Amino acid sequence: MAVCELISVGTELLLGEILNTNARFLSRELAYMGIFVLRQSTVGDNPDRLAQTLKEALERSDIVIVGGGLGPTADDITKEVCCKTLGCDLLLDKDILDDLNSFFKARGLSMPQSNAKQAMVPKGGTVFKNLNGTAPGLAYEVDGKCVIMLPGPPREMEPMFIQSVKPFLAKYSDGIILSHMIRTFGIGESAMAEAVADLLENDNPTLAPYAKEGEAFLRLTARAKNTAEAESLAAPILEALQKRLGAHVYGLDVENLQTKLVEMLKERSLKIATAESCTAGYLAKRITEPAGASKVFECGIVAYSNDIKQKILGVSADTLKNYGAVSKETAISMAKGVRYLADADIGLSITGIAGPGRDADNKPVGLTYIALTDGERVLVDEISAGRSNDREYNRLYAASKALFAAIDYLRKFR
Amino acid sequence: MAVCELISVGTELLLGEILNTNARFLSRELAYMGIFVLRQSTVGDNPDRLAQTLKEALERSDIVIVGGGLGPTADDITKEVCCKTLGCDLLLDKDILDDLNSFFKARGLSMPQSNAKQAMVPKGGTVFKNLNGTAPGLAYEVDGKCVIMLPGPPREMEPMFIQSVKPFLAKYSDGIILSHMIRTFGIGESAMAEAVADLLENDNPTLAPYAKEGEAFLRLTARAKNTAEAESLAAPILEALQKRLGAHVYGLDVENLQTKLVEMLKERSLKIATAESCTAGYLAKRITEPAGASKVFECGIVAYSNDIKQKILGVSADTLKNYGAVSKETAISMAKGVRYLADADIGLSITGIAGPGRDADNKPVGLTYIALTDGERVLVDEISAGRSNDREYNRLYAASKALFAAIDYLRKFR
Repeated sequence: MAVCELISVGTELLLGEILNTNARFLSRELAYMGIFVLRQSTVGDNPDRLAQTLKEALERSDIVIVGGGLGPTADDITKEVCCKTLGCDLLLDKDILDDLNSFFKARGLSMPQSNAKQAMVPKGGTVFKNLNGTAPGLAYEVDGKCVIMLPGPPREMEPMFIQSVKPFLAKYSDGIILSHMIRTFGIGESAMAEAVADLLENDNPTLAPYAKEGEAFLRLTARAKNTAEAESLAAPILEALQKRLGAHVYGLDVENLQTKLVEMLKERSLKIATAESCTAGYLAKRITEPAGASKVFECGIVAYSNDIKQKILGVSADTLKNYGAVSKETAISMAKGVRYLADADIGLSITGIAGPGRDADNKPVGLTYIALTDGERVLVDEISAGRSNDREYNRLYAASKALFAAIDYLRKFR
Repeated sequence: MAVCELISVGTELLLGEILNTNARFLSRELAYMGIFVLRQSTVGDNPDRLAQTLKEALERSDIVIVGGGLGPTADDITKEVCCKTLGCDLLLDKDILDDLNSFFKARGLSMPQSNAKQAMVPKGGTVFKNLNGTAPGLAYEVDGKCVIMLPGPPREMEPMFIQSVKPFLAKYSDGIILSHMIRTFGIGESAMAEAVADLLENDNPTLAPYAKEGEAFLRLTARAKNTAEAESLAAPILEALQKRLGAHVYGLDVENLQTKLVEMLKERSLKIATAESCTAGYLAKRITEPAGASKVFECGIVAYSNDIKQKILGVSADTLKNYGAVSKETAISMAKGVRYLADADIGLSITGIAGPGRDADNKPVGLTYIALTDGERVLVDEISAGRSNDREYNRLYAASKALFAAIDYLRKFR
């Protein structure tokens, strides 16, 4: 089994300015591939210390992944230090230089001189294109050891790793690892884990629970000689999960709630419109994340004040006065209002108290109503409490619950 | 200046199952105290590797903080390994044992036998009580070096660090570190770095460039005996930065664009309303992130289709036909429309092509118009190109540019 170490480079990490999400991402991906991570180290933008750390890591491990410090500025030292330590020369790569020039040209800019150093690559090494930024990833192999250099920003590093580095590293991994992600909503991580406790003991496939942003996931990982063999190991476990968690499962290997919802709406040629108070556009923003969402979504109203709820969505003054802005009745009226206004098949609304303070009616932080109507049925969900000190989480969770409510409606009724 | 290293112990970190938030927390707290973090390492629950890592760290640093592995189970090895490496004995601490018994009793349980090992402490060491769990924190000083052992769970470690470890470490801290974050928009990281290249060479204060999500930042860090002295070191640099980057600087030590904008609107008692096409609620969502945004924001319209642009925002069919949905003219009409509809002081609109495909008029991905009107003035910004394969980034950047446009308007005209 190949042994790997991670070195993160950046004084901002040593100062605690940013969280090292890259170490986690890479560790997890490498574990899936059957590559063992022996150690993670973080050092500052200091050539001697980086060189020392790299030398130590190469003594212990087959693969060393160095992340960060590939930018255009003087404190970006990773490439120079690694190549010096490995004894390889840097050469100008014309293709990368062309890419860099195009990158800036597309933005109506001319390339700053300092960016040119990002086109220097190790002679005899491998280049991984960066589709989301300017620093290419690099690999250099010598004496049976492999050093990989990756850009620091997660949105550049993560797709690069999946698209280019993973295939490159396949030769270090023996057999294949198949992995499926089962996504659930509306059940906590521990309740989910209890429901499948016996399956968590399995050796192959393994099943591991995760939780993130109010959702709980299970990752199934099967090791086998080939994909067919791995899938047949996975099948009975997937069936058991569907049986035990079916009501909460919203997708297998789907990206997220919004992707699933847009896909289902497209399949059914239905349009949805949104009316939001506390989430203030977060739901509409998420529905329009998948490309082509315009086929299923045309209109969203952010009615943050009571005035706007009345004026644009037609919520009556009486409803607001008698039940309050955060009530089942107002939620229903908002959903009906936006469905009518947008001439959509489905109206979906959210009204709640994101916090930190209670609302004008002294209702508690987190209390939220979600209503859905198709002109015939009216469905309402309630979230009774939120996190008193986490406004953003309450908004995220409310939008997620609305997305799940729409998915659940579609599979039950359409 | 005292030098410190962090060692995180836990196979779950090497498998990427959890994010290492402790390293960030401790690094930041230590930086504030003027204790320099030289390296962060993560190793698994393996006695030999932990001992080796600790020995290396003690050769380089005055203080080593080892986190995790203080639990009651067999794979919790931190205390035993550290004490063996340091050559100190472990003794039973009666107080801690009493605390442990009380902890379980309070929960209606009797203490499992395995927990008794948590009452063993290094002879001649210091004990930090754990108010939120069972594992006490420990410190042992020998030969001018200090090893601190802390529990892994953040909710136990963080309060323990603040309440007990920080006062204990005060003797190692000389002076303070002051840090300021200068936030800019509309200038790339490398262009910004070039404009301040000479200042990046400074030793104290140091100045370091960062980039994230389309924004570029500079972190100024001054070391001094006290805050007043540090501020007087910082002042001339801050002044120079304002002079060179002023048009792009939107805030000093502010959280982000939306926080700054809402603060400025509140100060001026002005209300803003938004009309969005491609960003589809992202702008409204961000304006409502700061608590109390309801004082300055009441209404946002997500007009994703041309129909809705006409019907709700009053964009004329002629404007859409002659100039297209993504045009200066449509953006202006949207901003005017929403300002009127919401009876707001300022109308702010975005219309653009997020991608991946071109729009119906075959305009390029990323082309975006941002319009702002106060009823008198009309200001328009254009983004001419985006990232062809990154819809989310294009939307994020467009919303950020709109936020910046509003900040810029307020400081110029109100």
